[in-house]
Amino acid sequence: MQSTKTGLVTVTMNPAIDLACTVPGFAAGAVNRVAEYRSDAAGKGVNIAGLLRKFGLPVTVTGFLGTENARIFEKRFSDLGVTDAFVRVPGETRIGIKVLDPESRSTTDINFPGLTPDASHLDRLTETVARLSREAAVVVVAGSLPVGVAPEEVGRLIGVIKAQGARAVVDTSGPALASAVRAAPWLIKPNDDELAELVGRPTGDLDDLVAEARRMNAEGIATVAVSLGARGAVFVEDGQALLSRPPKVEAVSTVGAGDAMIGGLVAGMALGLPLEERVRLATALAAATVMQAGPAIKDLNAAKVLEARIEITNLQKGG
Amino acid sequence: MQSTKTGLVTVTMNPAIDLACTVPGFAAGAVNRVAEYRSDAAGKGVNIAGLLRKFGLPVTVTGFLGTENARIFEKRFSDLGVTDAFVRVPGETRIGIKVLDPESRSTTDINFPGLTPDASHLDRLTETVARLSREAAVVVVAGSLPVGVAPEEVGRLIGVIKAQGARAVVDTSGPALASAVRAAPWLIKPNDDELAELVGRPTGDLDDLVAEARRMNAEGIATVAVSLGARGAVFVEDGQALLSRPPKVEAVSTVGAGDAMIGGLVAGMALGLPLEERVRLATALAAATVMQAGPAIKDLNAAKVLEARIEITNLQKGG
Repeated sequence: MQSTKTGLVTVTMNPAIDLACTVPGFAAGAVNRVAEYRSDAAGKGVNIAGLLRKFGLPVTVTGFLGTENARIFEKRFSDLGVTDAFVRVPGETRIGIKVLDPESRSTTDINFPGLTPDASHLDRLTETVARLSREAAVVVVAGSLPVGVAPEEVGRLIGVIKAQGARAVVDTSGPALASAVRAAPWLIKPNDDELAELVGRPTGDLDDLVAEARRMNAEGIATVAVSLGARGAVFVEDGQALLSRPPKVEAVSTVGAGDAMIGGLVAGMALGLPLEERVRLATALAAATVMQAGPAIKDLNAAKVLEARIEITNLQKGG
Repeated sequence: MQSTKTGLVTVTMNPAIDLACTVPGFAAGAVNRVAEYRSDAAGKGVNIAGLLRKFGLPVTVTGFLGTENARIFEKRFSDLGVTDAFVRVPGETRIGIKVLDPESRSTTDINFPGLTPDASHLDRLTETVARLSREAAVVVVAGSLPVGVAPEEVGRLIGVIKAQGARAVVDTSGPALASAVRAAPWLIKPNDDELAELVGRPTGDLDDLVAEARRMNAEGIATVAVSLGARGAVFVEDGQALLSRPPKVEAVSTVGAGDAMIGGLVAGMALGLPLEERVRLATALAAATVMQAGPAIKDLNAAKVLEARIEITNLQKGG
C-alpha cells in the first residue's frame, strides 16, 4: 500500500495541437477560406489529467513541450488546475490540422512534424519523473514517442517510477508498449490488436485473452485491461477476470475513449474502489466520451447515468 | 521641419502568421504528412520596420496582435530590435497556410479568420498612435484592416498622426486608402490599379498618372509614389516627377516588394536624402526583394549593387 502518497502524474512525451477547421468546398490547388476553427492542446496524458481533475484529484503533468507554441497548453493546464512540470524543448509542438469539408463530407489531415528532444531533454524528463514519483501514488505514461526517443526509454521510465515507489500505468503501442511490458508496470490497457502484437499472435476468444492477461499478471503487471471497442473491455487482476459491456450508445467520436478508460481506472484506484466498481466507472466514462464530439467529457454526470446500464460478467473459471 | 523628432513607427492592424509547408503529393480527403515547414510573423508594417532597422533607425511597431499566438511576433520584434507597442486583442492573429506540393507544383491556400478588435481596442490603438506620434518623425500605416474596423478609421488615424506633428505614410487599398487620401497623409504608394480605383477611372499614360498625382499633391499629399511593377515607379513631389526603372532582374517572388519601396522612401527621408536618391534607394530595395524568396532582404548590399543600374527619368514638363 502506498496510502500516504496521493499525487497523480501523467507523462505525455508527444503532445499535439489539434487544429480542426471547417472549409466548405475545400480543394487542393485553390485558395480556401476557413469558415470556423478551433485549436486544442491535445495529448493522451493531458486528457487523462483533465478527467482526473473532474474527480477533484491533484494532478501534475509532464512530458515534452515546444517553447514556441506552449501557450495553448499552459492555458489548458491553468484551466484544468493541473501543475505544469513539462520539460520545454526548443521548437514547436507538432500540429495536426483536420480540414472538414461539410459539402463533400470529407476530412483532410495535414500532420506537421514534431519536436526532436535530445539526450539532455530526456535526462531532464527522467529527473522530473523521478522527483514527481516520490510523492505520487500513480504515474501514467501515455501516447506515442517523439522522433529521437527510443522505445526502450518507456521501459526505463517505468523502472524509474517503480524505484520511487509509485505505480506506473502505461497506454502506448508497438515497441514502446513492448518495452513497457518488460518493465512490468502496474497497469496496461492494450486493445485486442495491441495485445495480439504484444504476444506475437492473433488472440482467440475471451478465454484466450484472459489467459494471456493472467500470464502478464504473473510477470508483475497487477492489472491488465484489454479494450474491445463497442464490445467493452476485459479486466484481469489478482485472480479476477471481468468482462464489462457498455450499453449501446450512439457513437459520435471514439477520440479520447481510451483516455477516459485509463482515467476511470486511475481515479477509481485513487478513490479506493474495488475492481468491479473501477471497471464500471472506467467503462461508463469511455462510453460517455464516445457519445460526444471532443475527447473530454463536460461533467461526470453523463457517465454516472450510464453506470447502471453497464453489464459486468465474471469470466473467472476455476480460478 | 520636424528635425528634433527622429522616431519611426509602423502600424499593422491586420498582421498574419504565414505558415508555409511542403507536402509531396498533397491531396484533399487524405492524410497528408508535412515534410518541412516554416512559420513567419508577417505584416506589411512589420516588414517595413525590419527594413528600417537595417539602416540602424529606431522603430516602434504597433497595431493589433492576438494574445494566443503573439509569441512568434514577440520573437521577431526582439530579433529585429524594434519596440513592441502592439495592442493585444483576445484570440489568435490570423494564420495563412500555404501548402506547397513539389510533385504537382501546386499551392493550396488555407486562410483562417482573424481577430475582431472592438471599440475599446481601437481606442487603445488610437491612444498608442497619438502617444508615439508625439516623438515620431514618420508613422507608417500599412496593410489591410481586420474585420470590424471601418475604412474610415484609417483616415481618422492619419488625422491623429498629423495632429501630433508626425508625417503619415499609408500603404493600403480600397476604401481604406480612399479614407486615408481624404485625410491627406504625407506619402501614399498606390499601384496603378489602386490609383485608378482611387480616381474612379482607368489611368492613361504616364502624363495622366503624373497629373493625377499632382492633383493629390495640391490636396496636401506631399509625395505620391505610384508603383508599376516591373516597369518601376513614378514619384511625384514638390513640383518634381521622376520615373524610376529598375534593371531587369530574375523575379523569384514579388512578396514584400511594396514594403521595401515604402521602407526605402521612409529611410531616405529619415537620412535626409533628396528625392532622386530616395527614389533610387526605394527602387533598388524593391528590386532586390523581388530577386529573393522571402519578404525581407538579408542585407542592404544586395540593393546597393542595383542602385547604379536604376534608370531615372525626369517626367517634368513645364512644371
